[in-house]
Amino acid sequence: MYKILYIDPVGEVYSTPEIDGFLKQIVSKDVKIDFTSLERGPANLEYIYYEILVTADIIHKVKWAEKHGYDAVIIGCFYDPGLYQSREITDIVIVGPGEASMCLAAVLGYKFSILAGRNKWVPIIMENIQKYGYQEKLASVKLLELGVEDFHKDDEYTETMMKAKGKEAIEQDGAEVIIFGCTMQFGFYGKLQQYLSVPVIDPIAASVKHAEFLLSVKQYFNWGHSKIGLYQSPPMEEIKRFNVNRMYNLKDLW
Amino acid sequence: MYKILYIDPVGEVYSTPEIDGFLKQIVSKDVKIDFTSLERGPANLEYIYYEILVTADIIHKVKWAEKHGYDAVIIGCFYDPGLYQSREITDIVIVGPGEASMCLAAVLGYKFSILAGRNKWVPIIMENIQKYGYQEKLASVKLLELGVEDFHKDDEYTETMMKAKGKEAIEQDGAEVIIFGCTMQFGFYGKLQQYLSVPVIDPIAASVKHAEFLLSVKQYFNWGHSKIGLYQSPPMEEIKRFNVNRMYNLKDLW
Amino acid sequence: MYKILYIDPVGEVYSTPEIDGFLKQIVSKDVKIDFTSLERGPANLEYIYYEILVTADIIHKVKWAEKHGYDAVIIGCFYDPGLYQSREITDIVIVGPGEASMCLAAVLGYKFSILAGRNKWVPIIMENIQKYGYQEKLASVKLLELGVEDFHKDDEYTETMMKAKGKEAIEQDGAEVIIFGCTMQFGFYGKLQQYLSVPVIDPIAASVKHAEFLLSVKQYFNWGHSKIGLYQSPPMEEIKRFNVNRMYNLKDLW
Amino acid sequence: MYKILYIDPVGEVYSTPEIDGFLKQIVSKDVKIDFTSLERGPANLEYIYYEILVTADIIHKVKWAEKHGYDAVIIGCFYDPGLYQSREITDIVIVGPGEASMCLAAVLGYKFSILAGRNKWVPIIMENIQKYGYQEKLASVKLLELGVEDFHKDDEYTETMMKAKGKEAIEQDGAEVIIFGCTMQFGFYGKLQQYLSVPVIDPIAASVKHAEFLLSVKQYFNWGHSKIGLYQSPPMEEIKRFNVNRMYNLKDLW
Amino acid sequence: MYKILYIDPVGEVYSTPEIDGFLKQIVSKDVKIDFTSLERGPANLEYIYYEILVTADIIHKVKWAEKHGYDAVIIGCFYDPGLYQSREITDIVIVGPGEASMCLAAVLGYKFSILAGRNKWVPIIMENIQKYGYQEKLASVKLLELGVEDFHKDDEYTETMMKAKGKEAIEQDGAEVIIFGCTMQFGFYGKLQQYLSVPVIDPIAASVKHAEFLLSVKQYFNWGHSKIGLYQSPPMEEIKRFNVNRMYNLKDLW
Amino acid sequence: MYKILYIDPVGEVYSTPEIDGFLKQIVSKDVKIDFTSLERGPANLEYIYYEILVTADIIHKVKWAEKHGYDAVIIGCFYDPGLYQSREITDIVIVGPGEASMCLAAVLGYKFSILAGRNKWVPIIMENIQKYGYQEKLASVKLLELGVEDFHKDDEYTETMMKAKGKEAIEQDGAEVIIFGCTMQFGFYGKLQQYLSVPVIDPIAASVKHAEFLLSVKQYFNWGHSKIGLYQSPPMEEIKRFNVNRMYNLKDLW
Repeated sequence: MYKILYIDPVGEVYSTPEIDGFLKQIVSKDVKIDFTSLERGPANLEYIYYEILVTADIIHKVKWAEKHGYDAVIIGCFYDPGLYQSREITDIVIVGPGEASMCLAAVLGYKFSILAGRNKWVPIIMENIQKYGYQEKLASVKLLELGVEDFHKDDEYTETMMKAKGKEAIEQDGAEVIIFGCTMQFGFYGKLQQYLSVPVIDPIAASVKHAEFLLSVKQYFNWGHSKIGLYQSPPMEEIKRFNVNRMYNLKDLW
Repeated sequence: MYKILYIDPVGEVYSTPEIDGFLKQIVSKDVKIDFTSLERGPANLEYIYYEILVTADIIHKVKWAEKHGYDAVIIGCFYDPGLYQSREITDIVIVGPGEASMCLAAVLGYKFSILAGRNKWVPIIMENIQKYGYQEKLASVKLLELGVEDFHKDDEYTETMMKAKGKEAIEQDGAEVIIFGCTMQFGFYGKLQQYLSVPVIDPIAASVKHAEFLLSVKQYFNWGHSKIGLYQSPPMEEIKRFNVNRMYNLKDLW
Repeated sequence: MYKILYIDPVGEVYSTPEIDGFLKQIVSKDVKIDFTSLERGPANLEYIYYEILVTADIIHKVKWAEKHGYDAVIIGCFYDPGLYQSREITDIVIVGPGEASMCLAAVLGYKFSILAGRNKWVPIIMENIQKYGYQEKLASVKLLELGVEDFHKDDEYTETMMKAKGKEAIEQDGAEVIIFGCTMQFGFYGKLQQYLSVPVIDPIAASVKHAEFLLSVKQYFNWGHSKIGLYQSPPMEEIKRFNVNRMYNLKDLW
Repeated sequence: MYKILYIDPVGEVYSTPEIDGFLKQIVSKDVKIDFTSLERGPANLEYIYYEILVTADIIHKVKWAEKHGYDAVIIGCFYDPGLYQSREITDIVIVGPGEASMCLAAVLGYKFSILAGRNKWVPIIMENIQKYGYQEKLASVKLLELGVEDFHKDDEYTETMMKAKGKEAIEQDGAEVIIFGCTMQFGFYGKLQQYLSVPVIDPIAASVKHAEFLLSVKQYFNWGHSKIGLYQSPPMEEIKRFNVNRMYNLKDLW
Repeated sequence: MYKILYIDPVGEVYSTPEIDGFLKQIVSKDVKIDFTSLERGPANLEYIYYEILVTADIIHKVKWAEKHGYDAVIIGCFYDPGLYQSREITDIVIVGPGEASMCLAAVLGYKFSILAGRNKWVPIIMENIQKYGYQEKLASVKLLELGVEDFHKDDEYTETMMKAKGKEAIEQDGAEVIIFGCTMQFGFYGKLQQYLSVPVIDPIAASVKHAEFLLSVKQYFNWGHSKIGLYQSPPMEEIKRFNVNRMYNLKDLW
Repeated sequence: MYKILYIDPVGEVYSTPEIDGFLKQIVSKDVKIDFTSLERGPANLEYIYYEILVTADIIHKVKWAEKHGYDAVIIGCFYDPGLYQSREITDIVIVGPGEASMCLAAVLGYKFSILAGRNKWVPIIMENIQKYGYQEKLASVKLLELGVEDFHKDDEYTETMMKAKGKEAIEQDGAEVIIFGCTMQFGFYGKLQQYLSVPVIDPIAASVKHAEFLLSVKQYFNWGHSKIGLYQSPPMEEIKRFNVNRMYNLKDLW
């Protein structure tokens, strides 16, 4: 029995409880998944300022989760804020919906396209694609011209835009798989998949199954995030010496 | 309950039954895995001539597996012979140990190195890395100077070489994860992992869990290999028109 | 006096004798060129399944050609099926129309475009471009929306499509040279070249002259395909040990 | 008269006043430069956890600087923490020592090498090189095997290591310019430059002159950081709506 | 007090004195800038033949400038003819408008587009982008369909074209900064910048400030063009031995 | 009957008549090859200053050759000075030993290494490799630590160095083909090839056969250098208007 924590990395007043319902539906029988959000934070991470505002809180929540027995954490935003830092300071499985979606799409077809919201998102998404190494698999990033908080304002309109841009991605850019560029696009993948006849990756769904996959290779073969370089943890003595707990009001986190 | 077929793509007289035992140990409870090899074929695929000799037989066996109720097939060679063709002519999950290992290593650390046998293998491995899009994640390919049939001749020597080359990969090339470049290197990952303190990916093990992962996203979300481009199937009428069954002695495969 | 064998890698009932006539016209005086096809095989290689079906037969025919005194073989398909394997198991000159066309186009202009048939072909063509290292020279792959067997159904229509797509490649994508993406597009280069005012490479024509070129550097300077790595031959003892002749009905090929 | 703020992004108890002296020496006559550090924070940013701990404080200090009349801010760490975010939320010139050093080195020689401290730093440095687009200009990253807080423990030893690794970079990797990979390596560039006979870029020095340069093009031609995409500011209404001031104890920053 | 020489690399009858006026306006107070052209040469460098005709004269003029006390030279063409050669044979600061513009644009936004004249220019511009290493920062090269001598024939028309192509670059290609691809496009950046709301880089302006920047780092830190590899000077004995002065009518240049 | 002109691009007092003898030996029966050098020029092109000194003279000689009935010109230096310009101003076949060697090596093996003289050459060679698009095929550039004029000072020493560096390239860098990085390395390929057991490309030899190959595709299929973009010729009216003949003492060249 694994325990996974899904963090919706927005202030709790802005969190989306429907996601919790979706998580419960799609998780495997032998896995327990909890949903949480942050004590504070904006309603979206469209600006990298907002992203930085929440990142420290995210990784502290991840550390807390490790201390409270969670085996894996999913950071519920396609930008994967704090993904590498969370792997650095814990020994559990950390999953980002962006990485999980691309990693899956890469084996499902020759090239994938991402349906993103606005042009503001493109450099961040491209930076992640570079970091993860999937430049060669990217067909295009298509813009829906919708913000994070708009996707569920008029579901019909959103779906219409997704169909149009998904079709363009396939016919003009050579995409064979479509990825949604935001976790707030949940609820649409089924219909779009039927319409487009290609896999349409919902990043929340992808991250839950990716977490289960990584938990399984860890249990069976002890393959976790390598702790020798990028994810090497800071020494506890140093964290103590720098008074991180007190300086950042983390109670007894460390 | 999923059914997976593992094909050891060598002539049956050269097949390695120990692999079957290993598969049974590592498969999940709700999955049944069978082991098979080819009716004919060389003992190794170190030459691309040998690879071509067996590829048609591999993909015909894959097609047979689909017709006989298998949900997934693993093509048991790090070169992944027939991987794309198998996805083209079936609708089931097809896994290659090379692709599965790199796909996993890419999320476990910043860069990975591959412990291969001889320099003859390098262009083929590099070609696959290019095809899969993992150039940016590759630290190096290190040579053990051993052929496929040599790995288990003197396990101690093999282990010594693996330790030396794995250490070099980490210290000189910046590898954070090690991948074995041949399925015949099974049996060594545990000791090496302990010695090197980084994940050491056994391609057989990686491919079994990758198959389970892909089966799970297919069952839950209907995400399979995209059939719109690279993996689009040839039309059955054409296969009939070309008399493929008769011409290639395939009985009633098609 | 050199002897070249041109293999039309389709079943003989599907082979195109007009190609033989074309070959005879364009070969140099001191070279003898023969045309052949395969005993069995589909009429096109649009699917990678079909490609694999014929590849072993191709390379065995290449080996046969070497034994019967041919100095060079041209594998008559733009996908270059079996190109590397043929170089691996022989010591003669092996030419692929895809490689020959790109290698020539690269010195005739800044960038080239390929006029291919359908989107299904694109990943295979791109894979070859990657393997040969010509990514930087590629302006675009344009689709004629015609299958291999369609090019000569209505020559006028084909020519119209070629003109339109060739023009687009030049004006929108910056192509300075056009390559036909299929050997079955023979017969069109002259008119197209006149219309577009740029070199239009017919892959059959390119491969014949490339063969003559490689034969000449071999004769003068002993420069053949390097046998030290990618093209290193499998040891004859091993081929014997694996009973390749018997297993694959090759009579006394080895 | 321009005003520049240099932020030493560590807790003030760990800040290095010698840097202030260095800044005063190298700034142009018509420029006033102030030195500051953070209220809290670790003594180094060798771990990406530490980097995230300080980043929000950095960019808030940058915003404060804009409000208090500074024309430019230098974020005093080679990792450039918060560089893009600071450009996003302000309209002033923002300089990172990493970006400034590479941007300069790129015009001073064919390729540059970076003398970094430990292998833990490499992925972060490489990620920045990718983001800035300087992969083609990088000869190598050489490791001094020293931590941030070690560089000035034994200046002679540090200098010896720098000479050895700088020489290697030039002779083995083809470097024509050397960059120090940490602002704490200040004080060494002069001697090293004399020894190696190539430009040795001190990132603090580079960032001061780069700031002056960017201020000058802004004053003369109104060329500042483009505010249309990556650096587009979040709308003030949104920042208010999200109660950022209250939530993050920022007083009346916004 | 620095002295900069700006070379308009065309025959003097074709030179543009308005540029001299522009230079005087934009140079810093403590810098003296002179304008010159070549004794002979075509009116434009649109063909690489013309470029080669003037390059030797350019670099000899640069050498002359060094001997006559100039601290820096700007080679006034976006193609940067003789840039590397000038750095090779002198020890002063050498600036090319192309390099200077891209180097600046790279820090002002995520990606830049270049407004060039005709498709003939593209390969040369791309070659320079490759040499300088800015491929990753390039959004697109847009064509105005105007020759070098056309930009000021009908300023209104030119401005209209620039606005249209600049808008396309931003909206379709993701450009955040615009660069003019020819020094003869001077005079337009202000209006275009206002219209497009992104930085519009005039290469002459960029090169003047880049020269001042490089002069400043040279004065303060002795950072000049590295003389160890690409820019290593030919030995004076060799130049004498080859009678370069006499052979090329250079009087007593060497 | 074709006529080829080989230009040794050095001042005639420094030219190497042995090359003429070599050319006569290796040219095909139906081809006449002439050898020439420049009226003036240094003895080597190791510095890009020297290269620029001779480039205009080279391309004017090429134009002269076209007017005097030559069908092809070989520019006898591995740097290929004036290659693109010569194609721009003529309609005949222009061959550069660098391009010809790499183009051939690319089809003879998986990767090639270049045996160059000194580190000063590396950026120029790399720039050409980028321009021609062969980055992916390059294993390494190895330095013999010999200048152009040194190769034949002590043939035995040169051969020893070549053997050592060639072996390193094969064993450490994965080279399968060796290219000499200077035309002055003629005379060594035979022995080296025997010693290394891989093709060793002499650039002079490669360029003669490449010229014959390009002449043959031009004769048979009218495939010459594309004149639509990079190689588009300047209009004759413009050349006249600019008084190129008079300005550059070209008599009645144009």
